[in-house]
Amino acid sequence: MEILFTFKIKEHDKLALIDEFPSASFHFNGSIEDEEVEKVDVIVTYGGNIDTTVLNRAKSLKWLMIASAGVEKMPLLEIAKRNILITNVRGIHKTPMAESVLAHMLALKRSIPEIYAIQETKKWANKFNSTELKGSTALILGPGAIGSEIGRLLQAFGVKTIGCNRTGRSVDSMDEIITFNDLLNKLPVADFVISVLPSTPETKGLLTTEHLEAMKDTAVFMNFGRGDVINEGVLLRALKENVIGHAVLDVFETEPLPESHEFWSLRNCTVSPHVSSKSGKYIERSLVVFKKNMKIWIENDKNFINVINPKSGY
Amino acid sequence: MEILFTFKIKEHDKLALIDEFPSASFHFNGSIEDEEVEKVDVIVTYGGNIDTTVLNRAKSLKWLMIASAGVEKMPLLEIAKRNILITNVRGIHKTPMAESVLAHMLALKRSIPEIYAIQETKKWANKFNSTELKGSTALILGPGAIGSEIGRLLQAFGVKTIGCNRTGRSVDSMDEIITFNDLLNKLPVADFVISVLPSTPETKGLLTTEHLEAMKDTAVFMNFGRGDVINEGVLLRALKENVIGHAVLDVFETEPLPESHEFWSLRNCTVSPHVSSKSGKYIERSLVVFKKNMKIWIENDKNFINVINPKSGY
Repeated sequence: MEILFTFKIKEHDKLALIDEFPSASFHFNGSIEDEEVEKVDVIVTYGGNIDTTVLNRAKSLKWLMIASAGVEKMPLLEIAKRNILITNVRGIHKTPMAESVLAHMLALKRSIPEIYAIQETKKWANKFNSTELKGSTALILGPGAIGSEIGRLLQAFGVKTIGCNRTGRSVDSMDEIITFNDLLNKLPVADFVISVLPSTPETKGLLTTEHLEAMKDTAVFMNFGRGDVINEGVLLRALKENVIGHAVLDVFETEPLPESHEFWSLRNCTVSPHVSSKSGKYIERSLVVFKKNMKIWIENDKNFINVINPKSGY
Repeated sequence: MEILFTFKIKEHDKLALIDEFPSASFHFNGSIEDEEVEKVDVIVTYGGNIDTTVLNRAKSLKWLMIASAGVEKMPLLEIAKRNILITNVRGIHKTPMAESVLAHMLALKRSIPEIYAIQETKKWANKFNSTELKGSTALILGPGAIGSEIGRLLQAFGVKTIGCNRTGRSVDSMDEIITFNDLLNKLPVADFVISVLPSTPETKGLLTTEHLEAMKDTAVFMNFGRGDVINEGVLLRALKENVIGHAVLDVFETEPLPESHEFWSLRNCTVSPHVSSKSGKYIERSLVVFKKNMKIWIENDKNFINVINPKSGY
C-alpha cells in the first residue's frame, strides 16, 4: 500500500504513522508532479492539486484523502467514474469555526471594533452602543457538525437557535428545526443568520434579495460556508441600502477578494480572509481522521468515515 | 417617603414606579444640587455625586441606592456614621461583563485584531496564528456573580476554570477553588488570569512583580475589576519586557486613562475604556433591584438585597 502526502507534516507525526502502519509505504513531502503519483494507492492532499490530468496519471489510485471540508472544486464525476474512494475531514473544523463565529458575534455586541479604533487614537471615549448576545435569536443554515457546535455555544449564551436544513431532520443544540421551504417565513425573527452551507447545486444562489428583505434591518448575516450561497452584488446592494444591519463574511465568490471590491470599505461589513477554520490543531486532527480510515482499509472493512458521495458533493 | 433620582430614566419606567408605589413621592430628573436633597429619604444615583457636603445637606437621608457596583470612591465611613442604608446593583453586570470578557478572549484566539487590521489595508492576507480557546486554563480572581458567569461560559468552551478567593469557599462553575495564599503556586498553569476583584484594602496591590513572573510568558492578564489590584508601572514593565503575553484592561488606576499613558501604544495591551458592564439593559435591571428593595422598605422588613457593609466596602 503506497501513500503520497502532498502537504508537509511534522517529523514526529511521520514516525507515528510509520510505526502504526508498518505494512504501508509512505512518501512524505511529496508533490503532485512526482512520478510516484503513477503508482500510489492513496493521495493525501488539501485537494486543490487534483484535476483530470492527475487522475489520468494516477493509474493505481484507490483513495483520495482530502484534508479539507469543501470539495466543490474537485473533478467529482471523474473520481466517481474511476470508483475512487473520496473522504474529507468534515467535522474537524467545528471547534475553530464555532469559536470564530462566536468571536465575531460577541465583538459586534460588545463594541470590540470601537474599542480597537479608539485605542488607535489614544483618546478615552466610551459612548458605545454595547448590547448583549443574550436573548437574541440565531438562524443557522445547514447545521451539521459545525452548525451544531455553534448552536451549543449559542445556547450557553442564552441565544435561541433555529436550524434550517433540506429535510427538517433533527440536529443537536437547535431549539427549533425548519426546512429550506420555511426559511422566508422564519427570517423575520432572526437577529443573526449564519450560513455554514457547503457549495452544492442546491445551495448555490439559495439566498436572494427576497431573503435579505425578509430579515430585520438590524440583522447580521454571517457567511462561513461558501461564497456562492448568495450573489455578492445582491448582498452588496442590501448592505449599502441598510436593508440588513451588518455582514460578516469569511468566504467569497472570488478568493482572494480583489482589492477593488466594495466589501472592504463598507462600515457595516466585516471581511474575514477565509481564516475561520484555521487553528494550530488542523493537521493533528486531520491525521486522526486519516488514521481511522487507514485502520478500516487495512481491516478490509468498508465502513469508512467522512466519505464524500461524488454525485451530491457532500 | 421622598425619593430623588439623580439620573434620567425613561417615561414608561417613571409611570411604572408611580403606579407600583403610590405612597412614595418621586423627584425624577433631579440633580444633587437641588433643594430637594435636604428633605428626601432616598437618593438613587450612580454614586459619583455623593460626598460629605451632600451628606451634610441631606438631613433626612436614610437610604442611598447606588446604581453601580463599585463604591470605593464613596465616603463610606461618613455614611456608616449616619446610619444610612447603602445598597448597590452588584450582579446586574454579570451578563454584559461575562460577554465582554469572552469577546476579548475569543478575539485574541481567533485573530480578530488582525482581521480588522487587514480590512483597513484592503489586502487579502491570512497568515495569522489563530489558535483555540478550547483546552485553555483560566484563573479567575474574585469569583462572585460575575466571575461565576464567566466560568459558566468558559466551561462551555472547554476551558478549565480555577476560582481564587479569600476563603476558598466553593463557587459555581469553577473546576477548582484556591485561596489567595495558593495563588503564586497556581499562576504557572493559567493561560488567562482574569481579575473581577472589587477595590478593598485587601485587594489593593494584591498582584505584584512576583505574580507576573509566575505566569506563563504567553499568559493573558485581564483586569475587569478595579485598576488598583496591580501597580500600573509594574504591569507596564512586564508587558514591555514580554514577561507575560498580553493584557486586556477595562479598568485603570486613573480614569480616563491619560493620552500620554504607554498602555495605549503597546502592541500587547488592549485598552478598553471601562465599558465592559455597559448594555442597553443597565437601567432596566437597576430598577428591578431598586423595586425589590422598595417593597422590602415599605413592608418594614429589614432583609434588603445588595446591601453594602460600609466598613468592608462590599
